[in-house]
Amino acid sequence: MKKLTTVEIDGAASDVWVEVPENEPAAWPKDAEMAVLGKALPRVDAYEKVSGRAKYTHDLNLPHMLWMKTLRSPTPHAKIVSIDTSKAEALPGVKLVLTHKNAPDIPWYAGRSKLFDTTLRFVGDEVAAVVAADEHIAADALALIDIEYDELAYVLDPETALQPDAPAIHEGGNLMQGRPFVYSRGDADKGFAEADHVVEATFRSPCQVHACLETHCSVAQWQGDKLTVWDSTQAVHPNREALARALELPIANVRVICLYSGGGFGSKLGLNKYTVAAAVAARALGRPVKVTLDREEEALAAGNRPANLMTIRAGCKKDGTLTALYMKNIGSVGAYPAGAGAGAPLREIFKCPNVKTEESNVFINADVARPHRAPGHVQGTWALEQALDMLAAKCGLDPLDFRLRNYSETDQVRNLPYSTKGLRQCYERGAAAFGWHDRAARRAQSRGAKKRGFGLATQIWGGAGGPPGYAIVNLYADGTAHVFSGCQDIGTASRTSMLQVAAEELGLTPDKLSITMGDTQGTPYGGVSGGSRTTPSQAPPVRMAAAEVKRQLLELAARQMNLPAERLATRDAFVFDTQNPSTRKPIAEVTRAGLTGPGAGPENMLIGKGWRGPNPDDVSISSWGAQFAEVEVDTDTGEVRVVKIVAAHEAGRVINPLTGSSQIEGGVIQGMGFALYEERVLNNASGRMVNSNLHDYKIPTAKDMPEIECVLVDLPDARANSVGIKGLGEPPIIPTAGAIANAVADALGARVFEAPITPQRVLDALARGKGGSGGATLSP
Amino acid sequence: MKKLTTVEIDGAASDVWVEVPENEPAAWPKDAEMAVLGKALPRVDAYEKVSGRAKYTHDLNLPHMLWMKTLRSPTPHAKIVSIDTSKAEALPGVKLVLTHKNAPDIPWYAGRSKLFDTTLRFVGDEVAAVVAADEHIAADALALIDIEYDELAYVLDPETALQPDAPAIHEGGNLMQGRPFVYSRGDADKGFAEADHVVEATFRSPCQVHACLETHCSVAQWQGDKLTVWDSTQAVHPNREALARALELPIANVRVICLYSGGGFGSKLGLNKYTVAAAVAARALGRPVKVTLDREEEALAAGNRPANLMTIRAGCKKDGTLTALYMKNIGSVGAYPAGAGAGAPLREIFKCPNVKTEESNVFINADVARPHRAPGHVQGTWALEQALDMLAAKCGLDPLDFRLRNYSETDQVRNLPYSTKGLRQCYERGAAAFGWHDRAARRAQSRGAKKRGFGLATQIWGGAGGPPGYAIVNLYADGTAHVFSGCQDIGTASRTSMLQVAAEELGLTPDKLSITMGDTQGTPYGGVSGGSRTTPSQAPPVRMAAAEVKRQLLELAARQMNLPAERLATRDAFVFDTQNPSTRKPIAEVTRAGLTGPGAGPENMLIGKGWRGPNPDDVSISSWGAQFAEVEVDTDTGEVRVVKIVAAHEAGRVINPLTGSSQIEGGVIQGMGFALYEERVLNNASGRMVNSNLHDYKIPTAKDMPEIECVLVDLPDARANSVGIKGLGEPPIIPTAGAIANAVADALGARVFEAPITPQRVLDALARGKGGSGGATLSP
Repeated sequence: MKKLTTVEIDGAASDVWVEVPENEPAAWPKDAEMAVLGKALPRVDAYEKVSGRAKYTHDLNLPHMLWMKTLRSPTPHAKIVSIDTSKAEALPGVKLVLTHKNAPDIPWYAGRSKLFDTTLRFVGDEVAAVVAADEHIAADALALIDIEYDELAYVLDPETALQPDAPAIHEGGNLMQGRPFVYSRGDADKGFAEADHVVEATFRSPCQVHACLETHCSVAQWQGDKLTVWDSTQAVHPNREALARALELPIANVRVICLYSGGGFGSKLGLNKYTVAAAVAARALGRPVKVTLDREEEALAAGNRPANLMTIRAGCKKDGTLTALYMKNIGSVGAYPAGAGAGAPLREIFKCPNVKTEESNVFINADVARPHRAPGHVQGTWALEQALDMLAAKCGLDPLDFRLRNYSETDQVRNLPYSTKGLRQCYERGAAAFGWHDRAARRAQSRGAKKRGFGLATQIWGGAGGPPGYAIVNLYADGTAHVFSGCQDIGTASRTSMLQVAAEELGLTPDKLSITMGDTQGTPYGGVSGGSRTTPSQAPPVRMAAAEVKRQLLELAARQMNLPAERLATRDAFVFDTQNPSTRKPIAEVTRAGLTGPGAGPENMLIGKGWRGPNPDDVSISSWGAQFAEVEVDTDTGEVRVVKIVAAHEAGRVINPLTGSSQIEGGVIQGMGFALYEERVLNNASGRMVNSNLHDYKIPTAKDMPEIECVLVDLPDARANSVGIKGLGEPPIIPTAGAIANAVADALGARVFEAPITPQRVLDALARGKGGSGGATLSP
Repeated sequence: MKKLTTVEIDGAASDVWVEVPENEPAAWPKDAEMAVLGKALPRVDAYEKVSGRAKYTHDLNLPHMLWMKTLRSPTPHAKIVSIDTSKAEALPGVKLVLTHKNAPDIPWYAGRSKLFDTTLRFVGDEVAAVVAADEHIAADALALIDIEYDELAYVLDPETALQPDAPAIHEGGNLMQGRPFVYSRGDADKGFAEADHVVEATFRSPCQVHACLETHCSVAQWQGDKLTVWDSTQAVHPNREALARALELPIANVRVICLYSGGGFGSKLGLNKYTVAAAVAARALGRPVKVTLDREEEALAAGNRPANLMTIRAGCKKDGTLTALYMKNIGSVGAYPAGAGAGAPLREIFKCPNVKTEESNVFINADVARPHRAPGHVQGTWALEQALDMLAAKCGLDPLDFRLRNYSETDQVRNLPYSTKGLRQCYERGAAAFGWHDRAARRAQSRGAKKRGFGLATQIWGGAGGPPGYAIVNLYADGTAHVFSGCQDIGTASRTSMLQVAAEELGLTPDKLSITMGDTQGTPYGGVSGGSRTTPSQAPPVRMAAAEVKRQLLELAARQMNLPAERLATRDAFVFDTQNPSTRKPIAEVTRAGLTGPGAGPENMLIGKGWRGPNPDDVSISSWGAQFAEVEVDTDTGEVRVVKIVAAHEAGRVINPLTGSSQIEGGVIQGMGFALYEERVLNNASGRMVNSNLHDYKIPTAKDMPEIECVLVDLPDARANSVGIKGLGEPPIIPTAGAIANAVADALGARVFEAPITPQRVLDALARGKGGSGGATLSP
């Protein structure tokens, strides 16, 4: 056992201990010849997906199922004076109307709200829910609920919210925790005083909604006192526990299933009110209840990446060596507690002795922020990398040379060496693939109003994963195996990755394995699929469980082959003698002979259990990447076209180049949306979102796609874990916007300080004139 | 590892090794004070069952599901000359007709038949299957299949089948393996020569069908190359493996589910043709397929307890000491290989130096025998116990005294001592509860034609269980736990028993636990629920898994309570200091503090795995029992009414007196059916069963019930396993018929040598006159 951390429970400090695996396999050596790992295996569920057989939560319709629709606040801040549901209840087909009057008092948002609250703090906050025979009746009934609201003053932007006379959304004011979060190392003032060049700029990043193609949804069904919830979620086991707490059930009585999900990006990490309301209604009515958010609800009330206003000051010596970095960040968390920090990249990526960040999380009357793929890092990197390009220009340095000059071999926040750091390879291989050093010649080819530009940006992400992570592997009498993981595959090909890890360790070909994920029944605990945790947290337990099975398999084989188990190994579905590899026996024959009982056929299985130990505390583990963007900007219309992105990433061992590239491409596309298209627009006069649909809220489409070239730096990290991997889920979205912004500035000779880079903002920047410094305005 | 046995695989001998658990808990001491074990806990699924919420396979209807019906041979022996399915296929709603022409060639019945064969060997043998939009269309379509049969000569009774000129059902003749199975110890001829008294009688027992209230049924559904089968089965994991073999799928691609089943009694142990056919059809059609046997099919083609013709000779000294026992048994296995032995009780129960049995398994043109609750033992005990009463009468000994005189302390077949043997307590406590020694006075109260009689019989059953058996126990952060077992609860309250074992070991109250059984997904391998194996095979792994969890729990608690883990124990959901029991902490607090991660709420679980080691080889482990019957026989009408049964049984530790008594009552009722009512009647002229329905085939009903008193002898067996239990599933059916038969003979002064004891047979016996010896006729 090893002490992991100390947490506060009911006011008392409690130590959290982790069992350190004793028989965890040692890391594979870097040059080990792999049979399955690193190979471009197509996804194991590819057929299900392309044939439409893969069933998502939206697809599930149970016999006797009812539908729930939610009435949401039409006003950004109000108290409910009265609510009359009688007309709605009288509508034929309506089974139940839930409001604060009859729903259980389940605390929500860290106790600042309830499942159904009488104070509404944003447009979209839950007022009531109708359960009816179908969704159309439920929707009709919503309009029949009579409510009298006492409308309150509201505030939509964080700077106004911080004014002393701003409407207070919560007691204690609109600044979360009453103070900014301040980080400091060295002496920033001294660092700026020592600088030869200093730049300062203010950057404004948009509120980006997750825009999941499968909107949030759940189906709840009871059998006696046992609840099954099909939920489009990134966290079946944590949500099971949260449901158990909310409904005061034993954890064991709750089952959560999510076999496939159509996008989450962080917005499906936690438990949702509608899921609990559906479970409450299903229990009351004795029938299954389904709830799906429509596209507008998805935009209004499913979470978002918060908007940030970031002022960055950066100073360096003539040779480009950084002397000081500073960021002031104001982030809007929405109506309830959340996080809106953006300073991590500035604190972490580049070598700098004097760093200070001051960050304020501010309540506004809008939907609550939720983790959105690389929270904080996307906007923080976008701002930082632009400021660095401005500083590099002052020094007359190539942007890549400037970054290499400030390359850090250590984690300066934790004061630890990195386990491995492949950023230099990302820069070098990415630049080579991109033709970074030929860009002057390519820029000269620009014709007329369409200007070419080139930019790059860097990425750090703490993709170490860690406990909890468990796995069970069964090897059957026919020599096939099954992997049980409590995690879920949220579209990132986790099933395929885990299966490859197990196949490699067992020495089986992938066709001999199958896997269960996304179902709490019969799987050991798995954590959230978020924070790029899934692979580094789950793959080591899967390997350990497979190794435990292999140990037993080799014992059986040793007796059958009359050889010591230590001399035996497995590969390609054979057990073989390492001293004489032609002496071998199919694994299926070993299991059949070793596990077949005296009766009629196979009767047994081998079982292995694996779990995740804590990370080493003498190194820092991070994933790395650099992206290079080529853009073409039409200086007449202001339109930006991304021509090409080269994305070079290092996340330890490459498990599967196909799925790794797929992960990178998805990140680049989403990062492009942040850079160029996506922005929640609130109407100040009503507090409502004006683009709560996919017609007005633009996400990148197939026609917007640039050429994307993925460079996977394969650098197994033996200190990270036994599989040598780090997380790759979030990294690829992080540097895209910064690379594009720098490329746009390169093309224009003028910089757009506000994302998304819309045609109007491009034209405004051109009108404002060429400038190496400047910033966004301080009000919207 | 320990060598369990040697089996033949593809002609080569292979050793089967079992991993011996190193950390299996020691057996609980006999006088341990139990908190949960031994308590009368109501079934954990009682609410589901009485409320109708428990879903059986018959209840399952999936979207887009199709129905399959089977065309069965109308003739006992034939070859299919031609088959034309075109009219059936043309019927609107028919999707597929499967016959030998288009179905895969899957071998069946040890290679003597196929999924659809062209030779039919009994009325009910599968000819074709129709899959249609509903079951009525499917049934209509069966009548549209045109078939030309070449009818062959047939034979329905085993004595005729053994004649040289009998129609041969298989090559090699109708005697299975070409020879009787012969057992001999000592010298039977010499034993009879030494005897002062010898009796000989011939007994005829009926073919008893299982008559499951939920007829056999399956639903098959594919998702891609993965198959899920809901099956009313006693063996989810073995059937999963059998399905994988039949369909050439990886075991991991098959899931079998049976959450509740309405009776099996051995007839649902193996894989059935209709299940495979439904899976084949579902794959071909891309839709789920359901098949349910109707009541006639259930009688014709779902298995049975074979009919036996048993001649017993028994000899003893004047004082009642047995000198020799002999049995000749002819059993009808039906049209394909099966077992029809009945000699085991004679070889095993009573002390006797000279024993010989000669047993022939004979093919006839009728449905195949399958294990039926205590196969062989019911009919063998029924015959033996009558012969012993006849011998006791010759000696002038009380039947109970006679049996006690021949009490054996050792297993004479294996030449080993018994681990424990509570038969003496069963005799003593049963006799006391019954008032055995007052029966002369009670017999004298008989009035008129209604004669009272009293009888007893004895039971042995090898209820040791054994490997394979696995369990996984999870303890969650809220202090609740879940047990995963690959076995199934076939109505015997296994869920409740396993939960009690886990609760006892964990020190949790039963309301904190839940359990999954009957689903191969996420459960470790479990064997068949047959042979009274479930509890003795499954409970020790459950305890071992719980102990492994408790070890981890106490480590967490030790750190929190600053006490060595060795000093801590659990009870009533608390961890407490064994040296100072008032120092205690709720388990839920220990888990919450110890497993709650640094983030939002509980994030972890403790996992324990347990498995079943082999039984010791220096003792013999058996379950024991004695039953006492009081009957009233109407000598005018021949009707027998059972007034009272006292059933005293010893099967090691009593886990739950409620569910144990329920098990015994069910056995007694079924044994009464064998004794008095049940008999498959075949029409010699057609080869068809004439009573293939529950109107003509009589099973006991509520109005037939006697008073049943259960005596549970609680005798924890430390040599058997860590829980101290033996099997109780089959024992209670074994002695009932013998006790009733002896009571009827006691009432009449004449003996009925043929079961069931119908009124006609009673009147025949009375007409034949009082007789201590005699026997059934040799032809039906």
